[in-house]
Amino acid sequence: MAQASEAKQRLREICRVAARVFYAKGYDGASMQDIAEAVGLTKAGLYHHVGSKDRLLFEIMNYGMDILDETVLAPIQDIADPRERLRRTIIGHIDLIVRARDQEITVILHENRSLSGPLRKKLNVRKRAYIDYLEDLIKRVQEQSGKPFLVKPRLAAFALLGMINWLYQWYTSQGHIKQEELTQVYVDFFLRGVLGTT
Amino acid sequence: MAQASEAKQRLREICRVAARVFYAKGYDGASMQDIAEAVGLTKAGLYHHVGSKDRLLFEIMNYGMDILDETVLAPIQDIADPRERLRRTIIGHIDLIVRARDQEITVILHENRSLSGPLRKKLNVRKRAYIDYLEDLIKRVQEQSGKPFLVKPRLAAFALLGMINWLYQWYTSQGHIKQEELTQVYVDFFLRGVLGTT
Repeated sequence: MAQASEAKQRLREICRVAARVFYAKGYDGASMQDIAEAVGLTKAGLYHHVGSKDRLLFEIMNYGMDILDETVLAPIQDIADPRERLRRTIIGHIDLIVRARDQEITVILHENRSLSGPLRKKLNVRKRAYIDYLEDLIKRVQEQSGKPFLVKPRLAAFALLGMINWLYQWYTSQGHIKQEELTQVYVDFFLRGVLGTT
Repeated sequence: MAQASEAKQRLREICRVAARVFYAKGYDGASMQDIAEAVGLTKAGLYHHVGSKDRLLFEIMNYGMDILDETVLAPIQDIADPRERLRRTIIGHIDLIVRARDQEITVILHENRSLSGPLRKKLNVRKRAYIDYLEDLIKRVQEQSGKPFLVKPRLAAFALLGMINWLYQWYTSQGHIKQEELTQVYVDFFLRGVLGTT
């Protein structure tokens, strides 16, 4: 048990370092040799740990989804009010994107197409589960409002993902928009978009 | 004059083919040899036309911005009503992203970080001009409504860019959301987000 957990920690450490290398050089531009050097392993040692470059990319993205589950979704799972839970989800998701140190997240967003075959399918199952979660939550917020639906919950979920995920392309917390303001504006903007009022 | 135009057409043709290669292999993964073969030139011939790989990426992105100007913005420049002009801008921008054949656009979105130095700066000037245009347009829509501003126009512009640009990650016009529905929903959703009502 302790051993399994140790292996997991070791894998996560490799993922964190490898994510930085992929971020800097691109998935196609980074070699397993580059990553082995950054991690402090021989190339053979790295292959022993992760199997293949494809598998390593999968493990990084899978780790990124773990971070979403562990740091954003798990802490709010007991919140019953759908609107409050949606608000907290948006806050947490924005925070994930803004904290640039979790480059696993950026790799998920950016190297989406680099993964292929069964590994891509496996990851898409996890991504879809998150989209389903958002869709369901938005639907419950709409139902709670008692008003006719202004937008299909699934389409609203994708609009929200776009607003938030695109932040990695332009937002920096060192600029003049503070993260708190950004979050407040995004929550209100999205709720107006979905409900017509906040 | 005719010669300059011919050279421009030739460059655009190279850009279109190279964009497909970058799209398939990634900027870092594609070699100039790959591109020369796809274009039907020798490697030396390709370098003669485009100077360098970096320059080629710049030319592709620059071409993508030309497409935005020529097919979306120029046709609506005489529309005086800000709200109608914003609506037409959203429709045109969505259409650019959805038409997968213009892969210059996807390369702009995806290989953003691959460009470096003065070429990146030069392209960012064009991108910023578009963001300024959106910001100004949103501001005029807000002013026209006569209501207090609910969101800073620049932040709203970035939210809009996220909603639309993210489409390249998930939307396919072969799915059950038709482009017309998508566009209508996005226009209304965005206007509610900005104004509180449509």
